[in-house]
Amino acid sequence: MSRRKSYKLAEITGRFGGELKGDPDIRVSQVATLEAAGPADIVFISQVRYLGQLSQTKAGAVILGADAPAASGIARIVCANPYAYFARVSTLFNPTAATIAGVHKSAVVDKSSRVDKTAGIGPVAVIGKRVRIGKRVQVGAGCYVGDDAVIDDDSMLHSNVAVYHACRIGKRCIVHAGAVIGSDGFGNAREDGVWKKIPQIGGVAIGDDVEIGANTTIDRGTLDDTVIEEGVKLDNQIQIAHNVKIGAHTAIAACVGIAGSATIGRNCTLGGAAMIYGHITIADNISISAGTLVMKSLAQPGTYTGVYPFSTHQRWLKNAAQLRNLDDLAERVRELEARLGKDKGNPE
Amino acid sequence: MSRRKSYKLAEITGRFGGELKGDPDIRVSQVATLEAAGPADIVFISQVRYLGQLSQTKAGAVILGADAPAASGIARIVCANPYAYFARVSTLFNPTAATIAGVHKSAVVDKSSRVDKTAGIGPVAVIGKRVRIGKRVQVGAGCYVGDDAVIDDDSMLHSNVAVYHACRIGKRCIVHAGAVIGSDGFGNAREDGVWKKIPQIGGVAIGDDVEIGANTTIDRGTLDDTVIEEGVKLDNQIQIAHNVKIGAHTAIAACVGIAGSATIGRNCTLGGAAMIYGHITIADNISISAGTLVMKSLAQPGTYTGVYPFSTHQRWLKNAAQLRNLDDLAERVRELEARLGKDKGNPE
Amino acid sequence: MSRRKSYKLAEITGRFGGELKGDPDIRVSQVATLEAAGPADIVFISQVRYLGQLSQTKAGAVILGADAPAASGIARIVCANPYAYFARVSTLFNPTAATIAGVHKSAVVDKSSRVDKTAGIGPVAVIGKRVRIGKRVQVGAGCYVGDDAVIDDDSMLHSNVAVYHACRIGKRCIVHAGAVIGSDGFGNAREDGVWKKIPQIGGVAIGDDVEIGANTTIDRGTLDDTVIEEGVKLDNQIQIAHNVKIGAHTAIAACVGIAGSATIGRNCTLGGAAMIYGHITIADNISISAGTLVMKSLAQPGTYTGVYPFSTHQRWLKNAAQLRNLDDLAERVRELEARLGKDKGNPE
Repeated sequence: MSRRKSYKLAEITGRFGGELKGDPDIRVSQVATLEAAGPADIVFISQVRYLGQLSQTKAGAVILGADAPAASGIARIVCANPYAYFARVSTLFNPTAATIAGVHKSAVVDKSSRVDKTAGIGPVAVIGKRVRIGKRVQVGAGCYVGDDAVIDDDSMLHSNVAVYHACRIGKRCIVHAGAVIGSDGFGNAREDGVWKKIPQIGGVAIGDDVEIGANTTIDRGTLDDTVIEEGVKLDNQIQIAHNVKIGAHTAIAACVGIAGSATIGRNCTLGGAAMIYGHITIADNISISAGTLVMKSLAQPGTYTGVYPFSTHQRWLKNAAQLRNLDDLAERVRELEARLGKDKGNPE
Repeated sequence: MSRRKSYKLAEITGRFGGELKGDPDIRVSQVATLEAAGPADIVFISQVRYLGQLSQTKAGAVILGADAPAASGIARIVCANPYAYFARVSTLFNPTAATIAGVHKSAVVDKSSRVDKTAGIGPVAVIGKRVRIGKRVQVGAGCYVGDDAVIDDDSMLHSNVAVYHACRIGKRCIVHAGAVIGSDGFGNAREDGVWKKIPQIGGVAIGDDVEIGANTTIDRGTLDDTVIEEGVKLDNQIQIAHNVKIGAHTAIAACVGIAGSATIGRNCTLGGAAMIYGHITIADNISISAGTLVMKSLAQPGTYTGVYPFSTHQRWLKNAAQLRNLDDLAERVRELEARLGKDKGNPE
Repeated sequence: MSRRKSYKLAEITGRFGGELKGDPDIRVSQVATLEAAGPADIVFISQVRYLGQLSQTKAGAVILGADAPAASGIARIVCANPYAYFARVSTLFNPTAATIAGVHKSAVVDKSSRVDKTAGIGPVAVIGKRVRIGKRVQVGAGCYVGDDAVIDDDSMLHSNVAVYHACRIGKRCIVHAGAVIGSDGFGNAREDGVWKKIPQIGGVAIGDDVEIGANTTIDRGTLDDTVIEEGVKLDNQIQIAHNVKIGAHTAIAACVGIAGSATIGRNCTLGGAAMIYGHITIADNISISAGTLVMKSLAQPGTYTGVYPFSTHQRWLKNAAQLRNLDDLAERVRELEARLGKDKGNPE
């Protein structure tokens, strides 16, 4: 691989702002952890409690917050949001590889489809009929894009992604390997002891700047579309059922499941393995903790949690046994209160 | 796409029964939601509480239950099971596309395999040795079907499905993208601090009319087959371990995990993210609620639940702290009872 | 398929040890369950409670533990660890198929990559630039191996596996269909209401003798590698986030999620659907029960559990209602104690 480009600290603050303290001519070319950094690396510290580790690092410079005391002689960039600043610097040092334009000779593209000449279609990818592939789109090896689908400009599908017919992916999206977009929703009507399939005739509409993790699945709508608005970030192995709507800039951690026809607001965060019931509405600006099952609609912003607190197995056995009889225990307390006279106050 | 075929309401009740109230010559050509429907659409209402919305819809007709009052001037079909009726109407309006027979030139099919001449093998699909592909089967782009596997008549594999060697899929099955059927069960014996792999020499036997969701995984049996009986419906991202048996017409929602050698009865429903321990038996006609972990066998029909009730995070912190000491709290109640004399009755 | 090779019991104990009781010339050629076994099969019993079933089996021989009484006339091999012994016998009877060397003509291999001549690259597999594929490696149909990746000797990728650029897989690993190795970690910094992506420039390093289940996902590190040490066994649909480290010989059941930067020790076991918070450390020799969410670091070996005990739905409704008010209940008990005088002892 080619030699990495380096930048003076003064060039970095010139691009991204922040206050530079130290030698402006120091050159850095990569981001690193405090432990692994060398003189050509820049590190970042997002929390004051990690400041103590600065004295050990061999990094050439550090990005830190305005509240951080001048704890070390290392050159530093002081800014309001070190993590976001680090994101910018890392993106500068590690730009996305340019799309290699053209259709690989092993790819299968129906001639009714329009693939922009700046787009790249990888080996053994399959593009159905009447598909539109936008500018600089990259379709990875082994992807399948069904009939009438749209992949808009600057989006990237990693390998082995499946996009079913008539689904639409916005601009600048990233879809990781194994993700499935547009599979049939789980709609079955029971009659005479047998399940009859409900055709799923809606699609999936994904906004701009959405990232979709590896092996995540998003079902198509029963009648209308399943909708993922702009800026939503989805981690790996998330399941989004039919007719779900997820508001803009919501971030969802891995292993979350959202059942059919649920609506999630804007700017929400869902922790890993959270589960959302069907047909409920979560308002904007709500955080659901990891592992929490939400069974009813939530209208008030805030953080919601419902997790069994773990312990040693022995202790769990005892507490869980009591939990199985908690209603009885509450009744016994009520009886004690009644016998003592609830409102008598402390008799002593 | 071609112009959609329309049907008179009288034609629909002629095919599917139900009582028609209103103009029998009204023509409809698609199903829709109440909100999105236009005059050429038919809608359905499964619950009386949605009846109020009927006054706003622009739909040409509505399917509803016998108990629904005549709440609007809209033409209607009255029937016993509106959801199942809707399924039939939607299937009439949205028939499955006919299989395009033939092997795509980019597919790789071993010459020892028998592919029915009415079957379609999609682009870059791979069919191993001695495979049997039945009539009108459709194998999607990028699928892999291992040696000695069988895909019976009228089944469909969407794109990128993996069927390992010697697995058998029945008639009229639908398998969604990314599903894996027949991967090795998780069998390891520990010896001298190291795990030794147990060969997984059973297969997977899937009955007729089974639907399998996107990225669902079904492991092959250790010695005998893992068995999914006819009419079972599996949603996305379900994990079914080795030696599991699932009884006919059971429906399982997304993200469920079923551990090794568990047996699930007929006509069961498992809610999303339910988890079933290994080596237990769930009898017929049992419902497991979403998010519930079932640790022991269940013999009695009914609904079973075990979910931590969520709340605001602040409230959770307080309650969870008490739950960690619930056994102590119960002991304190026992002490209070002893001091008051448990059977003395109310002292007041 | 060819006729199966058979072995005398004396040959088996000659290879693997154990004490043979019965006719040493009995020949067996396959392992089986007690129910399905015939005279040419050998079965095993790992727990004394299954011994009663021995009287019904038609098996030719049985493997059992030293503590098992001589309960039946069947020929038997007595050994210290029947399950591990069975693993060896089954591996003898069911050897892994030899790799078919060579690159399938439909595979796409960049000419800068080195594929050992004893390795097999399956149909429509795609190998990027500067990849190294070791001896006797088998890359399944439809796999994708990104630039600069390494698959070391004797490893096997089943079909449709995705290995991103610069990831390394050790020797004798098995990766099941649909697994994704090296997808981007879920790193986003929030600024001005929008998520900015953090480039994920680390890789994934997988040690020797690791097995990875179907549709499992392992994210690449943000800066350094995500690390899976030797002998780790991962079941299906596991999610391993960026920067995680899993110690040697740890076994993880299906549907587990491990959040970013968590460290799991050696010789641990994680039950199905267990969830591990980010940035915590689980020491060596710890067992986490199925369905348990671990929110903080654990230093002491032992078994840890946190699962809501399920019950009938009606009973759950009552107990869960009390759990929502558990802190209040505890307060009421404190009040009762205060009124009675906590240290007064039993008044009777």
